[in-house]
Amino acid sequence: MKILVIGGGGMVGVKLIDRLARDGRLGSQQITSLIRHDVILPPPPPAAAFPVETLLGDLSTPGEAKKLVAMKPDVIFHLAAIVSGEAEADFEKGYRINLDGTRYLFEAIRKAGGCYKPKVIFTSSIAVFGAPFPEAIPDNFFTTPLTSYGTQKAIGELLLADYTRRGFFDGVGLRFPTICVRPGKPNLAASGFFSNIVREPLAGHEAVLPVSEDVRHWHASPRAATGFLLHAATMDTALLGNRRNLTLPGISCTVGEQIAALRKVAGEKVVARIRREPNETIIKIVAGWPRNFEAKRARELGFAAENSFEDIIRVHIEDELGGKIA
Amino acid sequence: MKILVIGGGGMVGVKLIDRLARDGRLGSQQITSLIRHDVILPPPPPAAAFPVETLLGDLSTPGEAKKLVAMKPDVIFHLAAIVSGEAEADFEKGYRINLDGTRYLFEAIRKAGGCYKPKVIFTSSIAVFGAPFPEAIPDNFFTTPLTSYGTQKAIGELLLADYTRRGFFDGVGLRFPTICVRPGKPNLAASGFFSNIVREPLAGHEAVLPVSEDVRHWHASPRAATGFLLHAATMDTALLGNRRNLTLPGISCTVGEQIAALRKVAGEKVVARIRREPNETIIKIVAGWPRNFEAKRARELGFAAENSFEDIIRVHIEDELGGKIA
Repeated sequence: MKILVIGGGGMVGVKLIDRLARDGRLGSQQITSLIRHDVILPPPPPAAAFPVETLLGDLSTPGEAKKLVAMKPDVIFHLAAIVSGEAEADFEKGYRINLDGTRYLFEAIRKAGGCYKPKVIFTSSIAVFGAPFPEAIPDNFFTTPLTSYGTQKAIGELLLADYTRRGFFDGVGLRFPTICVRPGKPNLAASGFFSNIVREPLAGHEAVLPVSEDVRHWHASPRAATGFLLHAATMDTALLGNRRNLTLPGISCTVGEQIAALRKVAGEKVVARIRREPNETIIKIVAGWPRNFEAKRARELGFAAENSFEDIIRVHIEDELGGKIA
Repeated sequence: MKILVIGGGGMVGVKLIDRLARDGRLGSQQITSLIRHDVILPPPPPAAAFPVETLLGDLSTPGEAKKLVAMKPDVIFHLAAIVSGEAEADFEKGYRINLDGTRYLFEAIRKAGGCYKPKVIFTSSIAVFGAPFPEAIPDNFFTTPLTSYGTQKAIGELLLADYTRRGFFDGVGLRFPTICVRPGKPNLAASGFFSNIVREPLAGHEAVLPVSEDVRHWHASPRAATGFLLHAATMDTALLGNRRNLTLPGISCTVGEQIAALRKVAGEKVVARIRREPNETIIKIVAGWPRNFEAKRARELGFAAENSFEDIIRVHIEDELGGKIA
């Protein structure tokens, strides 16, 4: 089985490839080779029992998708995207990368023709939804995104479903929760604080909380994200029928509940490293974000996330801190 | 006020332009000129107090949209599309006309820049929805189309909402009910019988009913369709907020109720011209179509359709038959 990971240099891509290298197989199938594609040079590939090829390129460059599809991967993970903030700041770039890039990929597969019909796992986002929301968003809630990024992801979902229905490939679209705890340095993304207030105190550093403790949001760990991708790639997709895009499970909790979980797992000394510093801009952005989902269908289909925010913190301590708290 | 009607040669376009010519104004604004654009030569323009220019061309040809937008119309009715059956039979043509054509138009407006910000009325379709459905589809039901046409319309809606949110134009997307009674000859569209079984008997001809009388569907008259377009072009769009696409009101009735209404309006002699001839292909296609909608939001915003199928038949007799039944 040959695997292609587009956007293989990103946080989720790196973790997915690490896991595939560790497992050596995808479901019951032995992996024979893996291709990592990204616009920036990813970290060195993990040790694996199969060859890992690294290709640098931009999916939105005409011809690039065709080149990748010509290698006839059996499973394609399409994780490449520019993020919400950048797609909002640069309208043309957002549509070029997130919409045109995705369409080029789907078209290249369609045009490959013959009996080539790969599995395509597409990462979408809860940004396809736009406020106002019901208390818990049901699986059949409409997609009225309030960002260009969310619009581009919602269009990708529609294309994926139609190309699948027409038999060009076997697609699954996954609306990821906010990934928490994101490893690495604090960044300027409006959502960054959800991870910062856990990761930084656990590492002995101060973290800034820019919103009030009653802000509620929807989280899953990086380990759960990898699990979502693997499950989508190995599940019986006939169970999806024509509804190919899924809101994934997660944990709905308030910032206050996040902090309480951190106290329980790591103690008051760690929690005391969180500094409250309200930021009106971030408060306003976050007010428009979804807080909770039913995700009934994905759970019934076997997608699993953590059961509590404490579990999310423990996953971070195990996977990123070698079990140690500062 | 300058008006552009793209797809001005189609059934709805012709009726819209007739109405605008009769009114001489759109809402409180005097019409100074009207441009009809279509890929085929439309019928001669109606007598009007303002000049009517006819342009032949294909919106999906690069440069065509730019040419139209350069004329700086204040209101653009975008009615151009290839229909469901053709978009399903010819995958590339469907995406080229219905998706690329629409995107070219939106991009041409965005790139015109300056303070140009026209009103854009986009005709979408209930084909953006896909079975299984609840008994009456609510306004916040998700769009999981089961045709490429429905996919293309759903993408058009997402683009329209995002371009509007970004301030490039002031857009309204309208999900039309099935238009009934369609004037003209019977055609081979799977939905044709809904109109045929009324239009043909009223004109003294036999009509074929290929499905059972308990098939339920969603209808509005061609006159209501014109009303929807005019209301969208003159309403206070600020009331729409960021949710720019509306499921329009209509009449939900069964074929049996259609026939009962025809009997009431035109008598048994006319109804006797309907011949039952079950067609398994059409029965199967129609089984996947929506039957009923809430359309609460559009009604609250002042969009109005007929109140009964009898009214729909009377509109047809008035507008198409000069008040006479054969």
